[in-house]
Amino acid sequence: MKKAIILLSGGLDSTTTLYYALSKSYKCSALIFDYNQRHRKEIRHAVAIAKELKVHYHIIKINLPWKGSSLLDKQMKVPTKRSVKKMSAGIPSTYVSARNTIFLSFALSYAEVEGAEAIFIGANAIDYSGYPDCRPSYFRAFQKAAYEGTKVRAIKIIAPLIKLSKAEIVKLAKKLNVPIDRTWSCYLGDKKPCGVCDSCQLRAKGLE
Amino acid sequence: MKKAIILLSGGLDSTTTLYYALSKSYKCSALIFDYNQRHRKEIRHAVAIAKELKVHYHIIKINLPWKGSSLLDKQMKVPTKRSVKKMSAGIPSTYVSARNTIFLSFALSYAEVEGAEAIFIGANAIDYSGYPDCRPSYFRAFQKAAYEGTKVRAIKIIAPLIKLSKAEIVKLAKKLNVPIDRTWSCYLGDKKPCGVCDSCQLRAKGLE
Repeated sequence: MKKAIILLSGGLDSTTTLYYALSKSYKCSALIFDYNQRHRKEIRHAVAIAKELKVHYHIIKINLPWKGSSLLDKQMKVPTKRSVKKMSAGIPSTYVSARNTIFLSFALSYAEVEGAEAIFIGANAIDYSGYPDCRPSYFRAFQKAAYEGTKVRAIKIIAPLIKLSKAEIVKLAKKLNVPIDRTWSCYLGDKKPCGVCDSCQLRAKGLE
Repeated sequence: MKKAIILLSGGLDSTTTLYYALSKSYKCSALIFDYNQRHRKEIRHAVAIAKELKVHYHIIKINLPWKGSSLLDKQMKVPTKRSVKKMSAGIPSTYVSARNTIFLSFALSYAEVEGAEAIFIGANAIDYSGYPDCRPSYFRAFQKAAYEGTKVRAIKIIAPLIKLSKAEIVKLAKKLNVPIDRTWSCYLGDKKPCGVCDSCQLRAKGLE
């Protein structure tokens, strides 16, 4: 059975990606990162989703002492009430430097040891926050590094949502029976989603 | 003053690389990885070297629960008494999947937040253990991923020892006044270097 590693944050996109990989008959293992993000709520959601699907998972704890992002540094403000157009125009303070490179590097290590042939990541470059490590050109470059830097030279980086709008992601999620209500996208970790951070707004746009 | 991030293991190669970067007038910060390697001796050596040079450093703790390497898994045997020719011919059990990709990804994050323009890594592709993530083609590919995946698009990956033989590295180390005796290269963490692991043998070859 073909194996895959899935980067799972507990949000709508990564959860949909996990369901997508399962629908393609991959035996999936998930990596969930505890990177001192603003709140641990998304980790609890990710774990609950993995457990419900009986997907094996590891929680990887990492610490980036240099912070430099409002997702890591509670002294910084998470931007709110920005138009979707504005989001795509610049790189907001929620950007965590090299986050996807860090996540993918762990996934690459895991994939090679496990004999997995693919790594799935729920990145999206249409309705997104402008992060440089969500662009197709970045994934192509990382794919080459993965090829050159491993023994097996055969691990594919797959970002199935990369060219979908948020509305299309929601459509796919519904088709795959993703329990959308049980995913958590909000950058803040309050009882209810704030509704005004970029992530909440993009999600709302998709659902609408 | 131009800044650089140095990957520092406390071995001969990374220590020489740190001295080299300092000689090129970089303000250096070091990253030392505690990745559950077989022994903590190299971490102590790395810290001592950074302290002596008054180089700021972070110790980054990571865990790769999938292991898959004799440097991580004490049940596996570290190969010994191999000829240098044999070392370069295959990939030994000491290979840690995607290790340099993981280390470089943290360095990339740190470099971007710190405003550093370069990342120095002491990798070497001549007298080496055959690791795929020590080859020039790998570093070129990672360089491209670093360019595409960051906001600044300007961080250089520099591997100054990549094309040097171990003898040339020792020569450079002596020229830079590296305290070679205070570096630790042995894969095992006993009181004295074992003298027979690949790393000890390559070091001895260079010194000879």
